[in-house]
Amino acid sequence: MPALRGLFHEELELISEQLVELSKMSARALNRATQALFDADLVLAEQVISDDEEIDAVRRDLDNRAIDSLARQQPVATDLRQLVTTLRMSSDLERSGDLARHVAKLARLRYPEPVLPEELRLTFVEMAEVAEAMVLRAGEIIASLDVNGAKELQDRDDTIDRLHRDVFRILLDPKFAGATQLVIDSTLLSRYYERFADHAVSVAIRVVYLVTGVWHDELDEATYERHTSGQVPRAEG
Amino acid sequence: MPALRGLFHEELELISEQLVELSKMSARALNRATQALFDADLVLAEQVISDDEEIDAVRRDLDNRAIDSLARQQPVATDLRQLVTTLRMSSDLERSGDLARHVAKLARLRYPEPVLPEELRLTFVEMAEVAEAMVLRAGEIIASLDVNGAKELQDRDDTIDRLHRDVFRILLDPKFAGATQLVIDSTLLSRYYERFADHAVSVAIRVVYLVTGVWHDELDEATYERHTSGQVPRAEG
Repeated sequence: MPALRGLFHEELELISEQLVELSKMSARALNRATQALFDADLVLAEQVISDDEEIDAVRRDLDNRAIDSLARQQPVATDLRQLVTTLRMSSDLERSGDLARHVAKLARLRYPEPVLPEELRLTFVEMAEVAEAMVLRAGEIIASLDVNGAKELQDRDDTIDRLHRDVFRILLDPKFAGATQLVIDSTLLSRYYERFADHAVSVAIRVVYLVTGVWHDELDEATYERHTSGQVPRAEG
Repeated sequence: MPALRGLFHEELELISEQLVELSKMSARALNRATQALFDADLVLAEQVISDDEEIDAVRRDLDNRAIDSLARQQPVATDLRQLVTTLRMSSDLERSGDLARHVAKLARLRYPEPVLPEELRLTFVEMAEVAEAMVLRAGEIIASLDVNGAKELQDRDDTIDRLHRDVFRILLDPKFAGATQLVIDSTLLSRYYERFADHAVSVAIRVVYLVTGVWHDELDEATYERHTSGQVPRAEG
């Protein structure tokens, strides 16, 4: 049934394109949420919050297509891995959208006050830029099935982790004079950006599995450890 | 092929039992991590951190079984949903184990200092107890395919959310005299317990999909909203 297989592969292609679209939506959400945070822009914050429903809708559609394909095409090998991986990547990208929404909600909650203390603005600007670029790159890695992308995104994630620690270092500096509320908000925001970046790494690692059939944790124990252990703040140093 | 179908259903049964086991492992991890946190018990903290590899191994085994069954049995309808749902529940439970490990890592990082300020201990004791009970209940819900379990766990999650807000209220009280490090650590810890509880709710919601074939967000928009929006701290009230 070559015609049917052809149709199936068109469907897989569409699913892949939809994943790339989802990565762009989540990058845009983070970009706008960051802008809303920095400019104390209530309208933009509301926009990010309501737009998250679109991300959820695309994710839902993607998952339905993937499950439908599993049921109808009974795929094996690479095709099966693509569908299983799709369900995981859609979950990562939808969660990234949630994290962008968390940032926007905090901007809305504190409006018209700015959320971030002056001392942390530069660190968060960089964190937001790197995180946004990472999820866009994750989309490209999905489209090109680039098995080397995971390594690249892990390197960028090291930058995120460094910035995450910088946030704590600045908060702990005796010169820092911000109120407790600023400490709490900055801690949570830093965690949101850091998790956002983790999900981009996760997507790239799933591409390795898709292409090679090797689970990431079998691929490289150190990689796996980095990926799953998260970051307890090394705020002491 | 009734014999083969019978074997397949035995395999599905085994997969379900393994998910229940995973929920118990993650409950135990949280229990011990909490104890390590409260008693500044370095040995126990190390134990939780190294035991997390077992959780990861069970999760890996589960996922391999589920994907193997997808490839070999070409399931449809409920059987397909069970396998898809298994991949998601295993992810939730493995992530719960990671969050318990984060708690243990923070206990290890601050050793021999206690992590938590005295004022917060009771709140965290309650949060840990509720969260641990929730993941154990999630395991029972998997075993019994209880579609009403999601509602029950959402109610308990309301308690967690209240405690999460209590943490911020206590930190923001002018009487609170803890150092910035305590504020940062307590904020992150509270977030870890809160996310742990979210994953238990998530598992129960997936059981609804497994049994009914209805996505949780189609089931109840409010439920879905509660589930996915996370908790931006309403620390101001």
